[in-house]
Amino acid sequence: MRHLAISAVFLGLMTAQPALSQDYITPRVENEARELIEKSLDSTIGYEVVESLTTEVGPRLAGSEAEERAREWGVAKFRELGFKNVRVEPFEIPYWERSFEDAEIVSPFPQKLRITALGGSVGTPDEGVEAEIVRFETLQALRDAPMTGLEGKIVFVDEYMTRTQDGSGYGVAVQKRSGAANEAGKRGAVAALIRSVGTSQHRFPHTGQMRYDADVPKVPIAALSAPDADQLQRALERDDSVTVWLAIDVQSPGMRPSGNVIAEIQGKSDEIVVIGGHLDSWDLGTGAVDDGAGVGITVGAGKMIIDHIRETGRRPERTIRVVMFGAEEVGLYGARAYAEEYADDLDKHIVGAESDFGAGRIWRFETRFGEDKLDRAAEMVKVLAPLGIGPGGNMASGGPDMGPIRQRGVPVVTLKQNGWDYFDLHHTPDDTLDKIDPDDIAQNVAAYAAFVWMAANMEGDFRAEEPDETLASE
Amino acid sequence: MRHLAISAVFLGLMTAQPALSQDYITPRVENEARELIEKSLDSTIGYEVVESLTTEVGPRLAGSEAEERAREWGVAKFRELGFKNVRVEPFEIPYWERSFEDAEIVSPFPQKLRITALGGSVGTPDEGVEAEIVRFETLQALRDAPMTGLEGKIVFVDEYMTRTQDGSGYGVAVQKRSGAANEAGKRGAVAALIRSVGTSQHRFPHTGQMRYDADVPKVPIAALSAPDADQLQRALERDDSVTVWLAIDVQSPGMRPSGNVIAEIQGKSDEIVVIGGHLDSWDLGTGAVDDGAGVGITVGAGKMIIDHIRETGRRPERTIRVVMFGAEEVGLYGARAYAEEYADDLDKHIVGAESDFGAGRIWRFETRFGEDKLDRAAEMVKVLAPLGIGPGGNMASGGPDMGPIRQRGVPVVTLKQNGWDYFDLHHTPDDTLDKIDPDDIAQNVAAYAAFVWMAANMEGDFRAEEPDETLASE
Repeated sequence: MRHLAISAVFLGLMTAQPALSQDYITPRVENEARELIEKSLDSTIGYEVVESLTTEVGPRLAGSEAEERAREWGVAKFRELGFKNVRVEPFEIPYWERSFEDAEIVSPFPQKLRITALGGSVGTPDEGVEAEIVRFETLQALRDAPMTGLEGKIVFVDEYMTRTQDGSGYGVAVQKRSGAANEAGKRGAVAALIRSVGTSQHRFPHTGQMRYDADVPKVPIAALSAPDADQLQRALERDDSVTVWLAIDVQSPGMRPSGNVIAEIQGKSDEIVVIGGHLDSWDLGTGAVDDGAGVGITVGAGKMIIDHIRETGRRPERTIRVVMFGAEEVGLYGARAYAEEYADDLDKHIVGAESDFGAGRIWRFETRFGEDKLDRAAEMVKVLAPLGIGPGGNMASGGPDMGPIRQRGVPVVTLKQNGWDYFDLHHTPDDTLDKIDPDDIAQNVAAYAAFVWMAANMEGDFRAEEPDETLASE
Repeated sequence: MRHLAISAVFLGLMTAQPALSQDYITPRVENEARELIEKSLDSTIGYEVVESLTTEVGPRLAGSEAEERAREWGVAKFRELGFKNVRVEPFEIPYWERSFEDAEIVSPFPQKLRITALGGSVGTPDEGVEAEIVRFETLQALRDAPMTGLEGKIVFVDEYMTRTQDGSGYGVAVQKRSGAANEAGKRGAVAALIRSVGTSQHRFPHTGQMRYDADVPKVPIAALSAPDADQLQRALERDDSVTVWLAIDVQSPGMRPSGNVIAEIQGKSDEIVVIGGHLDSWDLGTGAVDDGAGVGITVGAGKMIIDHIRETGRRPERTIRVVMFGAEEVGLYGARAYAEEYADDLDKHIVGAESDFGAGRIWRFETRFGEDKLDRAAEMVKVLAPLGIGPGGNMASGGPDMGPIRQRGVPVVTLKQNGWDYFDLHHTPDDTLDKIDPDDIAQNVAAYAAFVWMAANMEGDFRAEEPDETLASE
């Protein structure tokens, strides 16, 4: 673990600063938030939590026995750290797992290809499928293709993903994950391959969930690593007729248990500030950046606040709830279960924020507040600014697991992380603990701890006084 | 492919420079060497050759059908580029290939581990082996361990490799590749695992050849990727008793054909300057940096010289021979076959150099010449200096496939490449074309073309006038 001393030096004088003149955050709360930042930067709690999860549980596919062990781990971890009302809220999900996947160029240049089946894909026949490749530069090109001509072929969507700091390249590129199989199936193809949705040039295919449209023949779909997509592209540049063999075996045995692990730091009122990450991961890596990091950051922030309360004897005005969501990757099952479970309490949810974008430093404070409440956001940003966090827009998603409650009107915040490298690791075997920088995750814990403390103690809330349609929109 | 224009600008005035005053290199040869450098930097031939090999053949394990296809590719490529006396010189090797490999932590923290069997390893029983791990920080610690206490265990040698520019970290770290199984076998262990011999922090295990000592029980051995070695290390920090299951299946069906692919550029005499790379690769990647690059660099240099001869009508004084060695990875079989085949001609071999260290820029000109001939090396370095190449020592290996002829007294040169990143890729699935920088490989082609041209045309040779024992030493 790297030494964190620099951060402490950088912010050493912070608590000695006079509080800013703020309307909604009292000087005491502001100073407490600054103290939480300073202490969090000197703490390794965020890293320790993700280290514990990835080491003691490792990969934890939604609905698997490993995800169940992760829930047990979550309950024990929350209790160990002093959280209260620790519980598992169970639900069920349709289970899917991969058993086998392999591919190769059969002709004219025989060699193995590294693939991974996308989540939800059907398998191939036992002997695999062998067919000619038809390449499309983009998903749009496949969508624009005639409805005939692809019968019996393997469609290859070779679209690249753009690397961006804010992750916006993902929203575009991820469409092929479902789109390729559906468009291929409609046209009678026998399988689909995509260039991985990711930015890495290492030889890891990126998995991720896909979904079949109703009434479309289901064809198996897998992702190629970028070097393998390059290879197939080069083969096709040399020869119009490239044949690939592809075999995928998957299991879909029906419903399996999953669940959310929830804990609280009791406040003086029953109003709630909810934060969290998701507990499940894909099967290939150990789910360190996706989303062990989010669990570590939000649990770590909670732990900093617990210590603060113990030291000062001062409870927050509002209750702070930390959620380890289950079954995010395969379709936000935990988020939907949460929104359903707390449907009648959502008006008590003051604000929500999920950390689900790795462990890179937070650089922007985005909100989805009532437009008439943005002065509250501005006050919080002032306190977070020494962490290198600037103001963002008011169209925050709040993170995937905040979607269902955001759509029901709960204000959300996205503490936007630097995602420049995130999609190098996302959904690959390479998503392992060593990719997390302890200094960076500590900055995240600091930002969450301060944000949560301010939100739980500041005057008023973040909902528009006049309910506003934009809040509930996607 | 990246644009190479910068290199041309950088060296644009080179041919206009007056020749240095040199004793062994005539002004004409010197100017021709400079011209070869300039043209090579503007050429993409080196990259094109490795692109062709990795795309059209891909992985080419020694003794496999793919290596045979690589020889056919080599013959065709040499002919296409205008080389003469193109031939395959066959030999046989004991064949080994992997069929299956898998491992997992069984308890207390069940999760998959990414491993690869080392070349030459025996397999496990079909059901695998399951046993407690005993970790050793270094191979030396295992060597120092008592002869009892490891019966029925899996030995884990967790030694790290140091990243160095000159690759010297490899010589130390690679000892565990054979040492771990032999020391484990002697002590009654059931298997051995090593932290991969490599410097990458990506989740690729590095394969490589191992060899059993005579009279030692043969235990299966595999390498863990660095993140998996970290994981096992962390598990052992938490719990003394960590159980791992490991299954390896390999095939060793006996002797199989391999061969060297050889071609020449005819000189005025039968003296020979020999350069080359090795044609075989490990099975996991496509053998781009190891050693498609070396093939591309040396074949490319030859092609630059062929073009030069065509333009000027001037043959070199000496014959230039380019060799694509077979079966290097599994024990220098091609190199030994070459030394045997040309045993009576070795006194005609003026100098040899193999490129087998990736495609990084050459930074040092190392020799193994007679001490009384080092003034020749100094003259060549002066011409290579504008490429960023400085003088090196006189203990060059000449590259692995030069070993057998160097040991028989042939002077050798190592055009030492920057190997800082080489062991991130070496022997992994990630050894693919995209890792080669076209500018860097062009610099290599330029250096080889100029060196070979000077060596083939300069006065005198590089052997000590009084034969010197150091020349023949390892």
